[in-house]
Amino acid sequence: MNSACTFMGCESGHSEAGTVLFGAPFDSTSSYRAGSRFACGVMRSASYALETYSPYQDRDLGDIAVFDAGDLELSPGNAKKALDAIHRFTGKVLYDGKVPCMIGGEHLVTLGAVRAAAERFPGLAVLHFDAHADLRDDYLGERLSHATVMRRVWELVGDGRLHQFGVRSGCREELRWGEGHIETHRYGFSGLEATVERLSGTPVYLTVDLDVLDPSVFPGTGTPEPGGVSFAELLDAVLATVGLDVVGFDLCELSPPYDPGGNSAVTACKVLRELLLLHG
Amino acid sequence: MNSACTFMGCESGHSEAGTVLFGAPFDSTSSYRAGSRFACGVMRSASYALETYSPYQDRDLGDIAVFDAGDLELSPGNAKKALDAIHRFTGKVLYDGKVPCMIGGEHLVTLGAVRAAAERFPGLAVLHFDAHADLRDDYLGERLSHATVMRRVWELVGDGRLHQFGVRSGCREELRWGEGHIETHRYGFSGLEATVERLSGTPVYLTVDLDVLDPSVFPGTGTPEPGGVSFAELLDAVLATVGLDVVGFDLCELSPPYDPGGNSAVTACKVLRELLLLHG
Amino acid sequence: MNSACTFMGCESGHSEAGTVLFGAPFDSTSSYRAGSRFACGVMRSASYALETYSPYQDRDLGDIAVFDAGDLELSPGNAKKALDAIHRFTGKVLYDGKVPCMIGGEHLVTLGAVRAAAERFPGLAVLHFDAHADLRDDYLGERLSHATVMRRVWELVGDGRLHQFGVRSGCREELRWGEGHIETHRYGFSGLEATVERLSGTPVYLTVDLDVLDPSVFPGTGTPEPGGVSFAELLDAVLATVGLDVVGFDLCELSPPYDPGGNSAVTACKVLRELLLLHG
Amino acid sequence: MNSACTFMGCESGHSEAGTVLFGAPFDSTSSYRAGSRFACGVMRSASYALETYSPYQDRDLGDIAVFDAGDLELSPGNAKKALDAIHRFTGKVLYDGKVPCMIGGEHLVTLGAVRAAAERFPGLAVLHFDAHADLRDDYLGERLSHATVMRRVWELVGDGRLHQFGVRSGCREELRWGEGHIETHRYGFSGLEATVERLSGTPVYLTVDLDVLDPSVFPGTGTPEPGGVSFAELLDAVLATVGLDVVGFDLCELSPPYDPGGNSAVTACKVLRELLLLHG
Amino acid sequence: MNSACTFMGCESGHSEAGTVLFGAPFDSTSSYRAGSRFACGVMRSASYALETYSPYQDRDLGDIAVFDAGDLELSPGNAKKALDAIHRFTGKVLYDGKVPCMIGGEHLVTLGAVRAAAERFPGLAVLHFDAHADLRDDYLGERLSHATVMRRVWELVGDGRLHQFGVRSGCREELRWGEGHIETHRYGFSGLEATVERLSGTPVYLTVDLDVLDPSVFPGTGTPEPGGVSFAELLDAVLATVGLDVVGFDLCELSPPYDPGGNSAVTACKVLRELLLLHG
Amino acid sequence: MNSACTFMGCESGHSEAGTVLFGAPFDSTSSYRAGSRFACGVMRSASYALETYSPYQDRDLGDIAVFDAGDLELSPGNAKKALDAIHRFTGKVLYDGKVPCMIGGEHLVTLGAVRAAAERFPGLAVLHFDAHADLRDDYLGERLSHATVMRRVWELVGDGRLHQFGVRSGCREELRWGEGHIETHRYGFSGLEATVERLSGTPVYLTVDLDVLDPSVFPGTGTPEPGGVSFAELLDAVLATVGLDVVGFDLCELSPPYDPGGNSAVTACKVLRELLLLHG
Repeated sequence: MNSACTFMGCESGHSEAGTVLFGAPFDSTSSYRAGSRFACGVMRSASYALETYSPYQDRDLGDIAVFDAGDLELSPGNAKKALDAIHRFTGKVLYDGKVPCMIGGEHLVTLGAVRAAAERFPGLAVLHFDAHADLRDDYLGERLSHATVMRRVWELVGDGRLHQFGVRSGCREELRWGEGHIETHRYGFSGLEATVERLSGTPVYLTVDLDVLDPSVFPGTGTPEPGGVSFAELLDAVLATVGLDVVGFDLCELSPPYDPGGNSAVTACKVLRELLLLHG
Repeated sequence: MNSACTFMGCESGHSEAGTVLFGAPFDSTSSYRAGSRFACGVMRSASYALETYSPYQDRDLGDIAVFDAGDLELSPGNAKKALDAIHRFTGKVLYDGKVPCMIGGEHLVTLGAVRAAAERFPGLAVLHFDAHADLRDDYLGERLSHATVMRRVWELVGDGRLHQFGVRSGCREELRWGEGHIETHRYGFSGLEATVERLSGTPVYLTVDLDVLDPSVFPGTGTPEPGGVSFAELLDAVLATVGLDVVGFDLCELSPPYDPGGNSAVTACKVLRELLLLHG
Repeated sequence: MNSACTFMGCESGHSEAGTVLFGAPFDSTSSYRAGSRFACGVMRSASYALETYSPYQDRDLGDIAVFDAGDLELSPGNAKKALDAIHRFTGKVLYDGKVPCMIGGEHLVTLGAVRAAAERFPGLAVLHFDAHADLRDDYLGERLSHATVMRRVWELVGDGRLHQFGVRSGCREELRWGEGHIETHRYGFSGLEATVERLSGTPVYLTVDLDVLDPSVFPGTGTPEPGGVSFAELLDAVLATVGLDVVGFDLCELSPPYDPGGNSAVTACKVLRELLLLHG
Repeated sequence: MNSACTFMGCESGHSEAGTVLFGAPFDSTSSYRAGSRFACGVMRSASYALETYSPYQDRDLGDIAVFDAGDLELSPGNAKKALDAIHRFTGKVLYDGKVPCMIGGEHLVTLGAVRAAAERFPGLAVLHFDAHADLRDDYLGERLSHATVMRRVWELVGDGRLHQFGVRSGCREELRWGEGHIETHRYGFSGLEATVERLSGTPVYLTVDLDVLDPSVFPGTGTPEPGGVSFAELLDAVLATVGLDVVGFDLCELSPPYDPGGNSAVTACKVLRELLLLHG
Repeated sequence: MNSACTFMGCESGHSEAGTVLFGAPFDSTSSYRAGSRFACGVMRSASYALETYSPYQDRDLGDIAVFDAGDLELSPGNAKKALDAIHRFTGKVLYDGKVPCMIGGEHLVTLGAVRAAAERFPGLAVLHFDAHADLRDDYLGERLSHATVMRRVWELVGDGRLHQFGVRSGCREELRWGEGHIETHRYGFSGLEATVERLSGTPVYLTVDLDVLDPSVFPGTGTPEPGGVSFAELLDAVLATVGLDVVGFDLCELSPPYDPGGNSAVTACKVLRELLLLHG
Repeated sequence: MNSACTFMGCESGHSEAGTVLFGAPFDSTSSYRAGSRFACGVMRSASYALETYSPYQDRDLGDIAVFDAGDLELSPGNAKKALDAIHRFTGKVLYDGKVPCMIGGEHLVTLGAVRAAAERFPGLAVLHFDAHADLRDDYLGERLSHATVMRRVWELVGDGRLHQFGVRSGCREELRWGEGHIETHRYGFSGLEATVERLSGTPVYLTVDLDVLDPSVFPGTGTPEPGGVSFAELLDAVLATVGLDVVGFDLCELSPPYDPGGNSAVTACKVLRELLLLHG
């Protein structure tokens, strides 16, 4: 019998697992199109369209041990409470000595997980793949928003510890502000190898906003931004993180309702498979 | 030149208008499928698919004076602030002696408008067409939610002043609770004539959650509930309110992304046209 | 081998056929949503979802002889030329003593066919099922338009010879005008039996604008108008024409792109199957 | 934590459960549009859009005990093997003294379950709601097909034991054949009360092909047949089976890809909720 | 209050504006799939998904002054009248010393604008990005068609003044004919720099048929032609026109109904933002 | 008159044709999403969106002679019988000295055609473009499956005669197995020129599983696998086969329901046009 309760190949029990996968189905601050709340469930189903084996890494999900803990219950419309729940859960996973792997939800959920990681790992660096800088101080007066999340993360980790790649959108102010405080690589992944080298030995939280991909490759997302990277470019970037000490990671902003054909979900699953095989 | 800035036929200036139409694009507490934030804009465009003339009433939008004030700017994710903004705006419309006509958004937005109406019209009654009772005291711990909105409305207007029609869904507890405090007519509009008669002379706020319609008629909504009324039944119910002293009204829960063909938006527009011709 | 070149069960040769089915893929005057140009092809494919046998009439398409002549080649954007081509082709079919059965296209195509039928059958009456009156004298200055087609038809057949059923939309002027010149039955088919009786012995052209159906039943159409008839009501109306001397008929305004699921095409095919079994 | 592994409210363990729900994701003989293989998973997710409480029956899924066993693993393309697996599993459920509740899949899967039920309950009657008669002896040479399934069922239960309601499509031959062997009620549910009365005391297997619903109500199905029953009519028919000794039941032919908006899945879930509350 | 009447950031009044943006919602000669009539309205709404700031140019729409004049009212089905209206309006914009920026509609609308520009600027050159050559002399007998528009433009500007890039489709005859009269660069933008250099000092009308993009990047268009350029390639080409004396420009052939997810509209908006920042 | 019975430009009679195009609408073993059964019909319609002329080859379908034989009638759910029918039909085409060009259907249909080709051309080599290796020995116990088809083909042609390009997915076992028996080029077409050179003089069957394309380019397919080739890369690969002695070819795995916008069908048609102009 089979009922696709778990992400494919993530059928280990909690105790033997080195990685704990969980969903954070929250999208209440999405300013354009919501729907990423459905990503976790849709990805679990869609994952069975893929093989558990990666020819890129010659590894199989059967070779590692991941526990799929299901989804957190998060109240629609209450960002503060949602972040607290994510913080708490991620903290417990880290306390157990395991690697948290979170499926969003909108990008704001990353803040909850980074809070826990920054507490446990002083000197934490954050590696961030995204189309958008997400560095506003507030958005329409709100400080907790998918458009401010990386500013809040910077407040936790400090200058020089946030490394962005793929950014191709922002307002003038946030991009100017960013120049003095964080490392932003525009449009793609050039410079990633050097960054990875420099981060060697540092605990790293890796967050992938899937809209870093071009909307042709990944139409099902909340704020599509034309001119993104190809799947091959993202895959290479993911594989380039191989040497890093990744203490937690997430994948955000799949919004299934905006890709009726369903391929965006499969694309998200393939990125997640590679991440799990690398850091899980 | 034409750029569909306004709902069709609502081109009066503010001063000569008796009715002020406005949008409340907020959907952050939607628990199943968000998207009603897009309803106001989509309805303005779709309205041009219809005639301004109603054969049912032999009236034309050209016969009345409606000012389309555009949409309120509401922060995604902050229900309290959104309700305050709606409360404030509706209050101003009422203070000017005009009738507010609000396009939601999710059903929670009704609370903001009823607050203003209840302040201005002591003894206000609320007439409510909906598939769902919306009478929970809280939803996942939140007191401001599309699932609790009518409980909050009851707190404002008191026992015996909330009249629900078409309800076909709820949890056992809220339906039981409702029996002692409000008047609920299940499944359809039987009893509406008597209620309308009894409300004669009372100031009434009318709120239409469009999911009272069967999902076949109105697929584009956030929480579809099979077994609803037909368009003809809703139209008859709307026309049956002709004698009421309606001091404000709204139309909620069109979620355009869930009806790719677009007919739900046209349906919403036709209901609104009839409401405007009756009470605008 | 099978390549779905013809409407199901319409595989007779031209000579033995009593009915000639053909497509008129033209939609250039559609004012809201075009796409009915694709109806003929899509209906031929979708027809194979149905049985050739009708339990309503206990007849099978195998019992009658229909020749599917394919589609006319009509230039997009030139209504006059398109109508001439339809007029010419229908005239030839009638001259051969056969019954023309046309699949639109937008409703304007009916004018071409009625021109031919009115030439051949003096005293021709037109029976018209539609959500819209289509009686404007011009539309944005154009006299040839889907919104004026029945006014042009009236010019051909004269007062008292155009019988409309199901009309629920129009501007005030055209509906007023209609009162003095044609017979309009609003909202449904009440009065149809009497009309059919009166038309006994008269040559009749029957035109079905499928938007007479409620958009829930028939979402794939160019100008959806909520509040229409159910499939059962349209079926009964079609069957009620059994005694008429129908000399030609058509089915218009299926616009496949607006029903991604495809059921509108199947619905159109079922109506056509019944019409063919009755009048083909 | 929550990961929607089970149909809502079906969280009992196997031992305490009186009903075992399971999926049969097979659709290889679908002749028009496949996709019902995805129904079981999609329904589990969509079920959370509904309440567990039915106002129609004043019962809650929390009041009964259902075990959701997940889905059978069935090889695409091998009908014989799939039926054997369903037969075997259903047999075990019945042997344990529990009621099997199967989610299809195409309608052919019913044959596997009826085989088991007929073995265990001599004199078994089958109550069948469907748009199609499904009584062909073979379909394009195949004896195991969604178009022949009820002929195969008749071979198991014999003359007078198969009761069909809602049938509005078939070829002439199968409908003629049926007249001598089974009880067919066309177009709707008239006569159902009498049949239920006559079946009192008889073990009954109930199979609901959801395409008995009109395609407007249930667009997401493999062979849409216009002219079906409304949701209210099906609901009434389901509730009318209240006194029957239902020893097993199923729900078939939801094909999610053909309803991009997703309401067909919610509709299927609501029918299933009522069936579980009645017979589970 | 906000009602998305204008393209984002185009809120200048007419007098202070250097650029006048307007829509030409006409698509009646589309030979494959119509729908570009909806582009102007859909783009205004979708534009709010983007930032007003371009990191590519380090400019913001707030830095320039654009007046959004709304849409022309064009009769469906009458190409001649539509072109006259566009000609007249564009002429007035040019007479006022402003730059016209037109949003199509199908590509035929370009002819109206080029007529006005060629009258005002003798020696006008036309720079043309497109998948299709559009050089037929007639199409199914029509001389005014989206498939002939560039032949008509050539008649206005003469040999050597029409420069095409990205062309990957045409019939043999039109491509042969083109060799003697115009400059065609197939498949992409190689040679663009040299052309831009040669056009220095010449008044240029720039027309972008968005189907020059690959259908993966831009699915929502009327005649998709696989094998087109990427977004990055089009963006580079647009930016390469920086030194030109562009006296008018347009963007055509977005057909929103063929991209249900909506990203094509966002893509069109981003191209338009860059064009406005360069030439507006 | 025109009814799109044939692929565009394939209007030769059987006797003068050198190539026979036919459809094999079978998809019963599809393990993820079925629907490729509809590819043949949809491609015939969609082909008219393209020109008959290829600028890449400077050839026109009017220059060659292709007979479109329509579609084989294949029973859903019976792979063995379907393969027999394809085998028989392909054999007859080859016996007549013509080149078979088959449109799938799922990839399993290739086996039927290769059986016929291998019988007629000893020493046959198979050139295979695909995202998936398709080399499993069985799939869920079935030996005839889209996931095993190339293993079955290998059994017919033997070691060293199967040449795969573009493969980016498989299980570890099948890829390991393949290393000893066939030539697999991963991820793209590097090495194709050398392979083509080596195959000079050998009879070759060419099979193109269109999912070799990236899902952004070709969303409408049954098992989307992110990271595929671009349209330009596939086009170059197809053109690179120019010198080969291609004795038969096919195009598989277009699944139209999963690309509601329809561009995947146009893409498939463009690949087929180029193949026909090269090898037809």
